[in-house]
Amino acid sequence: MKIVTFGEVMLRLSPPGVERFTQTDSLGMHFGGTEANVAVSLAQFGLQAAHVTRFPDHSLGRAAAGYLRKYDVSTEYIRYGDGRLGLYFLETGAGSRASQIIYDRVDSAFARIRPDEIDWETVLAGASWFHWTGITPALSQGAADCLLAGIQTANRLGVPVSGDIVYRSNLWQYGRTPQEIMPAITEGCTLILGSKGLFSELYGVIGSSFQEAGHAMMKRFPNIRYITDTKRNSISASHNQLSAKLFDGKEVYKSRVYDIRPITDRIGTGDAYIAGLIYGLLTFGDLHRAVEFGAAASALKHTIPGDVNLATVSEVETLEKGDSSGKLKR
Amino acid sequence: MKIVTFGEVMLRLSPPGVERFTQTDSLGMHFGGTEANVAVSLAQFGLQAAHVTRFPDHSLGRAAAGYLRKYDVSTEYIRYGDGRLGLYFLETGAGSRASQIIYDRVDSAFARIRPDEIDWETVLAGASWFHWTGITPALSQGAADCLLAGIQTANRLGVPVSGDIVYRSNLWQYGRTPQEIMPAITEGCTLILGSKGLFSELYGVIGSSFQEAGHAMMKRFPNIRYITDTKRNSISASHNQLSAKLFDGKEVYKSRVYDIRPITDRIGTGDAYIAGLIYGLLTFGDLHRAVEFGAAASALKHTIPGDVNLATVSEVETLEKGDSSGKLKR
Amino acid sequence: MKIVTFGEVMLRLSPPGVERFTQTDSLGMHFGGTEANVAVSLAQFGLQAAHVTRFPDHSLGRAAAGYLRKYDVSTEYIRYGDGRLGLYFLETGAGSRASQIIYDRVDSAFARIRPDEIDWETVLAGASWFHWTGITPALSQGAADCLLAGIQTANRLGVPVSGDIVYRSNLWQYGRTPQEIMPAITEGCTLILGSKGLFSELYGVIGSSFQEAGHAMMKRFPNIRYITDTKRNSISASHNQLSAKLFDGKEVYKSRVYDIRPITDRIGTGDAYIAGLIYGLLTFGDLHRAVEFGAAASALKHTIPGDVNLATVSEVETLEKGDSSGKLKR
Amino acid sequence: MKIVTFGEVMLRLSPPGVERFTQTDSLGMHFGGTEANVAVSLAQFGLQAAHVTRFPDHSLGRAAAGYLRKYDVSTEYIRYGDGRLGLYFLETGAGSRASQIIYDRVDSAFARIRPDEIDWETVLAGASWFHWTGITPALSQGAADCLLAGIQTANRLGVPVSGDIVYRSNLWQYGRTPQEIMPAITEGCTLILGSKGLFSELYGVIGSSFQEAGHAMMKRFPNIRYITDTKRNSISASHNQLSAKLFDGKEVYKSRVYDIRPITDRIGTGDAYIAGLIYGLLTFGDLHRAVEFGAAASALKHTIPGDVNLATVSEVETLEKGDSSGKLKR
Amino acid sequence: MKIVTFGEVMLRLSPPGVERFTQTDSLGMHFGGTEANVAVSLAQFGLQAAHVTRFPDHSLGRAAAGYLRKYDVSTEYIRYGDGRLGLYFLETGAGSRASQIIYDRVDSAFARIRPDEIDWETVLAGASWFHWTGITPALSQGAADCLLAGIQTANRLGVPVSGDIVYRSNLWQYGRTPQEIMPAITEGCTLILGSKGLFSELYGVIGSSFQEAGHAMMKRFPNIRYITDTKRNSISASHNQLSAKLFDGKEVYKSRVYDIRPITDRIGTGDAYIAGLIYGLLTFGDLHRAVEFGAAASALKHTIPGDVNLATVSEVETLEKGDSSGKLKR
Amino acid sequence: MKIVTFGEVMLRLSPPGVERFTQTDSLGMHFGGTEANVAVSLAQFGLQAAHVTRFPDHSLGRAAAGYLRKYDVSTEYIRYGDGRLGLYFLETGAGSRASQIIYDRVDSAFARIRPDEIDWETVLAGASWFHWTGITPALSQGAADCLLAGIQTANRLGVPVSGDIVYRSNLWQYGRTPQEIMPAITEGCTLILGSKGLFSELYGVIGSSFQEAGHAMMKRFPNIRYITDTKRNSISASHNQLSAKLFDGKEVYKSRVYDIRPITDRIGTGDAYIAGLIYGLLTFGDLHRAVEFGAAASALKHTIPGDVNLATVSEVETLEKGDSSGKLKR
Repeated sequence: MKIVTFGEVMLRLSPPGVERFTQTDSLGMHFGGTEANVAVSLAQFGLQAAHVTRFPDHSLGRAAAGYLRKYDVSTEYIRYGDGRLGLYFLETGAGSRASQIIYDRVDSAFARIRPDEIDWETVLAGASWFHWTGITPALSQGAADCLLAGIQTANRLGVPVSGDIVYRSNLWQYGRTPQEIMPAITEGCTLILGSKGLFSELYGVIGSSFQEAGHAMMKRFPNIRYITDTKRNSISASHNQLSAKLFDGKEVYKSRVYDIRPITDRIGTGDAYIAGLIYGLLTFGDLHRAVEFGAAASALKHTIPGDVNLATVSEVETLEKGDSSGKLKR
Repeated sequence: MKIVTFGEVMLRLSPPGVERFTQTDSLGMHFGGTEANVAVSLAQFGLQAAHVTRFPDHSLGRAAAGYLRKYDVSTEYIRYGDGRLGLYFLETGAGSRASQIIYDRVDSAFARIRPDEIDWETVLAGASWFHWTGITPALSQGAADCLLAGIQTANRLGVPVSGDIVYRSNLWQYGRTPQEIMPAITEGCTLILGSKGLFSELYGVIGSSFQEAGHAMMKRFPNIRYITDTKRNSISASHNQLSAKLFDGKEVYKSRVYDIRPITDRIGTGDAYIAGLIYGLLTFGDLHRAVEFGAAASALKHTIPGDVNLATVSEVETLEKGDSSGKLKR
Repeated sequence: MKIVTFGEVMLRLSPPGVERFTQTDSLGMHFGGTEANVAVSLAQFGLQAAHVTRFPDHSLGRAAAGYLRKYDVSTEYIRYGDGRLGLYFLETGAGSRASQIIYDRVDSAFARIRPDEIDWETVLAGASWFHWTGITPALSQGAADCLLAGIQTANRLGVPVSGDIVYRSNLWQYGRTPQEIMPAITEGCTLILGSKGLFSELYGVIGSSFQEAGHAMMKRFPNIRYITDTKRNSISASHNQLSAKLFDGKEVYKSRVYDIRPITDRIGTGDAYIAGLIYGLLTFGDLHRAVEFGAAASALKHTIPGDVNLATVSEVETLEKGDSSGKLKR
Repeated sequence: MKIVTFGEVMLRLSPPGVERFTQTDSLGMHFGGTEANVAVSLAQFGLQAAHVTRFPDHSLGRAAAGYLRKYDVSTEYIRYGDGRLGLYFLETGAGSRASQIIYDRVDSAFARIRPDEIDWETVLAGASWFHWTGITPALSQGAADCLLAGIQTANRLGVPVSGDIVYRSNLWQYGRTPQEIMPAITEGCTLILGSKGLFSELYGVIGSSFQEAGHAMMKRFPNIRYITDTKRNSISASHNQLSAKLFDGKEVYKSRVYDIRPITDRIGTGDAYIAGLIYGLLTFGDLHRAVEFGAAASALKHTIPGDVNLATVSEVETLEKGDSSGKLKR
Repeated sequence: MKIVTFGEVMLRLSPPGVERFTQTDSLGMHFGGTEANVAVSLAQFGLQAAHVTRFPDHSLGRAAAGYLRKYDVSTEYIRYGDGRLGLYFLETGAGSRASQIIYDRVDSAFARIRPDEIDWETVLAGASWFHWTGITPALSQGAADCLLAGIQTANRLGVPVSGDIVYRSNLWQYGRTPQEIMPAITEGCTLILGSKGLFSELYGVIGSSFQEAGHAMMKRFPNIRYITDTKRNSISASHNQLSAKLFDGKEVYKSRVYDIRPITDRIGTGDAYIAGLIYGLLTFGDLHRAVEFGAAASALKHTIPGDVNLATVSEVETLEKGDSSGKLKR
Repeated sequence: MKIVTFGEVMLRLSPPGVERFTQTDSLGMHFGGTEANVAVSLAQFGLQAAHVTRFPDHSLGRAAAGYLRKYDVSTEYIRYGDGRLGLYFLETGAGSRASQIIYDRVDSAFARIRPDEIDWETVLAGASWFHWTGITPALSQGAADCLLAGIQTANRLGVPVSGDIVYRSNLWQYGRTPQEIMPAITEGCTLILGSKGLFSELYGVIGSSFQEAGHAMMKRFPNIRYITDTKRNSISASHNQLSAKLFDGKEVYKSRVYDIRPITDRIGTGDAYIAGLIYGLLTFGDLHRAVEFGAAASALKHTIPGDVNLATVSEVETLEKGDSSGKLKR
């Protein structure tokens, strides 16, 4: 099964351990982006994954692509051109000290993408799933247009589409609002990750509970078959509790609450959830198990350095089935 | 507002992570000293801070000064001369294994200081606060004399003086006892950090509670306006609980109890408290908020590698106001 | 007092921190082996310890011996010859993610040992204790034969013998079963570490409780004076609870339950227990204190990177006496 | 253009910098193998490269494949199964101290390969070149048989074949001699890298000069169109001089002598030469330029850490055209 | 003596040792900028140095300022505001492999500077020298205007001005050419570092030799008293030869040719020269010694990691006087 | 053959690579001392070596002893007590930048040694050689007295004694001059390493050439049988030339001149020479080969990080016999 994801990949730079920006003199490198994180995770689960993006045509852009290939994501549809490599600086917190991110992604090679650079017919041929997030249409008109073209092609080819409609208000600098852009993009989706607050803010869709809001979304966007969301209780930067739920228009399926401590790396844990969920939907017949698998995948991601979830199906299954003992495997 | 601190700064050498001295082959470098730690913390809070000390006149002494400047502490009053750079070796523990310190500070350049090397009139001109600790008079007659001269100048100039009367019995090797030396130094102080046990041991001042002992100290040393102390419950090397209290002669103001885990670096957490308290006293009108700010600052310091607290006012305020969720800041 | 241990020592290679095998590009080196770990621990407690093994005759074999000497274990009885250095790769987990080991020890220099290579009369002369584990007879006929010769010599010389009868089914590749080999080896033992499950599986010795199974073992193997075991409750890879018990044919002595978090390194914690117990048996008159000392030693080992326990007697005693506060030692 | 290579890939473990095995406590990881090194180099030159090998089915085997993909080599024909991951330990020398390698590759997953595991028709379909070395037939009968099958398929499909007939006498442990095995393998080759000494030793083919020995080889093996070799003058471990020559049956084309200092990493420099030569033969019309490009590629490899040459065509061309100034590129 | 410099400071990120961008997973941090490098060097020589720039108002901007203070450069005139921190990525070459830089400095906080943000009267009060380079006017109209205002103020206050007229054609993106901008800036200069090629390209000033071109420059820009330049012979990335010359309108003073190998870090070596020259002009009476001191300073910088020259006066003097033996100093 | 050495062992702390003290934030650890370096080197050559010293009774003192044992030097005669661990800080230079050492060894545990702490009869029983240097008598009266007792015991037992009479004027702080102390110590020596300049300065022994001065020394100190010295030509911190000579009262034996570049670590290269020479004298019948072996050992040491020479006999022999090609050993 071939999965396609589309979005920016950034170089992440972070001080060793829990050092602060003002005290470090080296930075560890990872690469990540919310959609590519999903691709990597699905590749670890054994599916074929291809990520579509645009990188600067220099050694660091090549290194970013190498990072994806290393984790078994196909880079054959990646384009190279002008613009910067998007960056973000991550300072990892601990206990009561929060982690901090300084973004430096303006005018990246990805933000400069033009819709005609991606031949979606070729990219999506034979695909079983297409995934996007709300970061992409926030970056530039070109990225939003390119995404819309991708979704429309997916619809034409009968490829299911999932969207994580995450909204970051400090993006959206190119003169359009999410209220203008998001509805058309959402139109073609099979699965949406979002909260009722977001449904209201982005689409004016109102519901007093997750279930009611889900119903309302499905009425507004008839292609949507699933609405999902995660819930996080942040006790400290080192200790969180996490659960997930999925609504299929009839029932709400809820995962267990996972108690997560210590937290090694919180970045990409939402992406790990959606990758787990997609894997479950594509592989199991069972919606409840799919949401549980997604939540367990997300819980495991918190223990893995970097943006991407390197857990295997067998590791996720161990946790999904309730064994969180962490007993040594010889 | 300009704050002046006075005391030895040591090179701290510690194995990576929780390695033991007997297994490591590299040592991370930090610089620290209880008084300079206070200066660095106040500089991060945006105040002008100057530290007064004496370093050996070689590259490592220069590096120590560079470390202070990096964290925005003025080094213009520092003297350079003969003697060693004081050192300490820190092995960081975890769980039930305690951290261990091997001090190697005998005969340091600072211990060789002569009172005439510091022109206190110049140093303290325009200062809003002067801070010292009980380490300094324990190191040498010169250091004790120089400190006394500083306090007397501060008194003459109307600069408030705080003293952390910490007592380490294995220092005090130069032939005088703290009972002989400390009273004259304490005389000129506005604020004292200490416990009733210490008040009894150092000054023979007795009180059955923190409040009563505080009253008795204020009677004995009429310049004292505030008595403060912290209370630490050590559950393990990785988990502590901490609170603070302040007595102003009338009321005892108590902070919340902060639950601290995991602990990244316990060194300098008392200094972080007093820096937070001084900041609060100089900045807020509110004694209760000052002690809460100090305790929150101390709690945050436990998450930061090195001796010095690199937390900002806004970070401390977040915690002081009760948010210990450590939620990612983008 | 001189203690002798016998068994393979492997090079352990592990990614930094909690990185996964698929993401690291460097590996930290330690050396370890269940029996040598006991020797190192006893050497830290101040006893004379000598480890007997066989290494390849190249720089890495020499480095392995150097590692033992560094921690004060005598390498004078070590032989060098053909064969590989046994290896294992350790990926350290956290929270709900388990640690993983990839063994690569087949056909090691140790597995190629011939009984005539070790002159047990010389090695055990003047020894106070001899320790082995069930790993050794599982590796090769030569290793099993050499061990048996050692135990028989110890018996002849009146040296007490302890055996940790750990059973790993994926070893035992040389054509014999543990049921064929273990009884003769167990015959000469004074102290056995094992569970009733193992007693049944290896020797067909049945008992419905630890105590009853212990009685049955002592009946079957009359040299045995002590049966011991540990009990571990794995809450997560970062949080365990551990206790130990010892049966002397009359009474069962139980240690406290140690709450261990965070866990730095779980490898070798069983070896730390048996080293502590042996130290206790050889040094204290008190069986209860011996088992408590062993359990405290094991708890401390969890905080120390590497396979070997570098805790001192005084550190273990602090914990054994109930102080787990981890208070800084200056 | 698609290039196929076949052979073992090992995990290389080396101390930082020029530390000795007996003093290091960490090992840097690279992966390499003489044939895969050629594939990586050609992939950096922009050709499509696929490496065929067999890895153990565990995380380290997966990591090895990830390493190849990172550098843009296709891993789609790789098989996973039982057996170890071959290893080698490299201690890097300097000046008059030689580098040292400890091989630990016996009984690897690759050595256990069976000819029927590789479907050469599929692998070589559409390929422009196939490359092997004398390491592969030395490892096991299975590897030798599998290689022969590959060469015969290449011949059938009209794919040119190059062989580096390197001979390591300490390999060849499976009961056959190179004299028995190599002739049939050499039969199908278009290009051979070797010296007249080797021609004599392996095939009994005698010639008094490179040119005469080349003629004799071509007479014995009529498929051979090119004979090539490099010449290295080792002044020290940090300073070498290198040149190459190519004989096409008529003329000997010689490269410049490259003065190489300092040497960062000497491993894989021969593989870099042959990759450069293959690139030249496939891309340029000019034999002299091809051998010069190969020699320049080899010279550059000496400056790059790891087994594989990460130089680009443009970097090699700069040096090939005579600019060794190393001027900063902004 | 107080020296003022003005220009952008970037975060430099470079792989460890000579690793390539495509293989590293961590980046060492330094900060540097051609003008700030001059300030740091002069501060190491014992002069008072203040750098004027504009940083983003976040932790990395603060870290950049901390870096300058650490090396004793005053940051009191630095402004904080919107915009990015300029970055550059440096891959260090060796031997015949060139170092490579990827700049990522577009739209930095410095490029957004407005002339009214710097109060040049205050900044230059009491200054003995002002230094700028051709990078600054290339970045933005604001930077060019601000620089011009600084030079005019310096002229008004009688502060000598030096300019390194380095020209990078890939900068100058804001719509003006250097030919339009540079003459007015050059007008106010006392000392110019540049070649006759640059004099011709930027100002149309022609001269057939360094001396004649110098004369012509002095005629065109009557404030200029000194013209200087360096000459570099790049034998490889690890071996350069360097000399310098100074023309005072009458005579050309030439330094020795320094043979530099190995090269640790070539960045900032031109800045080290001009810092040495300025130190010489301000301190010695002797032009020949000044140029020799500058060249020796530059030679030493090649041995020091990072952009800035941390050599002391005494180290430079040792080399300037001809002792390049590198004998251990105890 | 058992060799005994006596002297202080210091913890050496050095920044990574060629970083300066003012820029590093970590320090690599080695242990070394001129006499212990000789012991380690001889242990690598396969002789039994025991080092006699006095360490502080804390973890760092224990770590120092562990370092010696790791390299196969017996620590059984080491005493533990009060006092500091001697330290030195080493900044490694390159090219024209010299390495720098900051010593911090005053009042070490070794300097506090009392003659009665070492039972020389036991220590030297069965020894084949005893080695000391001029550092030891310079540290304290106790160290000088203890050394003299050792030499006198060696003389009584017929153990040959070598002395490297290195003179450091900044030591000798305890009130005695080398002219007072050294003659008695030199009296009992068989072999002296020193120059004619030193012979004159320390003993007033004059000779116009190495040979004549050697004759004069042998006349003054009739026990001396060999005089030896090395000659170093420092071209830069990265490039030296080294040779050695030995005078036996009749003939001067001279080694080849070794061209050494690059230099990894210059510390301990003199100690490596004398260790090689002692090995040669004890093992070969041939004085010329002994001095050549010593010089080759010293040359190799320059390539090894740390104070101690980890070269093996076979490595030294390769170089001694003229092969400096550094060809890879597989």
